[in-house]
Amino acid sequence: MRAQVHYHQVDQMGIVHHAQYAYFLEQARIQWLTDQGISYAALEKDGILLPLRDISIHYSQPLRFEDNFLVHLVLEKTTDYAIDFFYTIEREDGIKIATASTKLVYVDAVSRKAIKCPAVLQAIFQDK
Amino acid sequence: MRAQVHYHQVDQMGIVHHAQYAYFLEQARIQWLTDQGISYAALEKDGILLPLRDISIHYSQPLRFEDNFLVHLVLEKTTDYAIDFFYTIEREDGIKIATASTKLVYVDAVSRKAIKCPAVLQAIFQDK
Amino acid sequence: MRAQVHYHQVDQMGIVHHAQYAYFLEQARIQWLTDQGISYAALEKDGILLPLRDISIHYSQPLRFEDNFLVHLVLEKTTDYAIDFFYTIEREDGIKIATASTKLVYVDAVSRKAIKCPAVLQAIFQDK
Amino acid sequence: MRAQVHYHQVDQMGIVHHAQYAYFLEQARIQWLTDQGISYAALEKDGILLPLRDISIHYSQPLRFEDNFLVHLVLEKTTDYAIDFFYTIEREDGIKIATASTKLVYVDAVSRKAIKCPAVLQAIFQDK
Repeated sequence: MRAQVHYHQVDQMGIVHHAQYAYFLEQARIQWLTDQGISYAALEKDGILLPLRDISIHYSQPLRFEDNFLVHLVLEKTTDYAIDFFYTIEREDGIKIATASTKLVYVDAVSRKAIKCPAVLQAIFQDK
Repeated sequence: MRAQVHYHQVDQMGIVHHAQYAYFLEQARIQWLTDQGISYAALEKDGILLPLRDISIHYSQPLRFEDNFLVHLVLEKTTDYAIDFFYTIEREDGIKIATASTKLVYVDAVSRKAIKCPAVLQAIFQDK
Repeated sequence: MRAQVHYHQVDQMGIVHHAQYAYFLEQARIQWLTDQGISYAALEKDGILLPLRDISIHYSQPLRFEDNFLVHLVLEKTTDYAIDFFYTIEREDGIKIATASTKLVYVDAVSRKAIKCPAVLQAIFQDK
Repeated sequence: MRAQVHYHQVDQMGIVHHAQYAYFLEQARIQWLTDQGISYAALEKDGILLPLRDISIHYSQPLRFEDNFLVHLVLEKTTDYAIDFFYTIEREDGIKIATASTKLVYVDAVSRKAIKCPAVLQAIFQDK
């Protein structure tokens, strides 16, 4: 995923506020799903939610307004109940900005209980 | 509604980002409803949504990190289909920060069609 | 400016939260300046700030998650002390989502006083 | 730190968006500093920045609109170059919502280089 820093994402230190990275990771995950042929909007309409269980971000260098950057995402592990992604954020010129990891779980939209990995996602993971 | 400026609400000009004011107004509206005995969460559960139709904000002076401020809200007009509020934002020391107005409409959560002012809100407006 | 609705921009009504539109307009303005050969980051480094004085948004139809949309921007008026833009937001399929207008003023970054339109911007406005 | 969930913090799953927790933690840290007699705004004016180096959040249960919650903060470790905090977020009724940890570093506002723990903060840490 490629993006550019927007004005409102920068705090009074003149750097992208650390909370914004959670949005960058989310956007990269949804883009990755789209690239695999899965619409996250359609998943939710089918009653499957993927809330976050864990997030961890290590900040190496700051991003500034108008910086272009890339988020690389790797599917690290899948189990019956969770997906783990690992992320690297790089500025366009190759400077390493941050690394991160997330664990998502599968939840039924109605019962709000944990469910096993839905078939539509299993099919993707088997190809990886 | 009284509040204090949080760090993340400030942009790289060192002032509260203008979009944050929309959140302040929303918080003041919901607080006002609570003060009238109406829970906005309960309204939504009853299938009544109050989306924004219009917003207008005039910024006079900036707010900075750790500033304390007040949002005063006046119910300006109610019709069968809309509520208009007018807001004044002041810094704790009396400096006028901004004025604003909003128009909210009533929408049925299922059909997503405009509906008339629900009885529970009419009862409040009659007392004003 | 073209963009897609991100997950975090949507509220529990299932529509883009109204405050997010202020970010869309900001992004469109900065893109417009870039298209005219002006970097907003460079303007700020030169000590020129363009804070918002007024914003007004009229919401016609909601945007939903994964919707693609366009923000059209027109330079409406320039005076010695302010620039007015008018915006139209459309969903990709042509549905009109919102219209908006903003007034920005010129401020010296050090004194924080209003200044006249800087030469670099005047040059652009004369061509319009 | 006590707070209530605002409407705009909730996503279309009907739960507080995970990125918002980074703001809650920040607010709790700044409140803790205030309680120790340190104004974070004053620190910044003195040229001392405390950017985040690491954040890690584990989400146990979701927060919903209008939920009241508490953020408990413990100073976990201080070294010459970093402060580690540990956080517990609880709903008002005692349900455990999340745990988190952060590492902040000291940076000189002008050189943007890492600096040793400033004297004003050392004085606090010695009392702990």
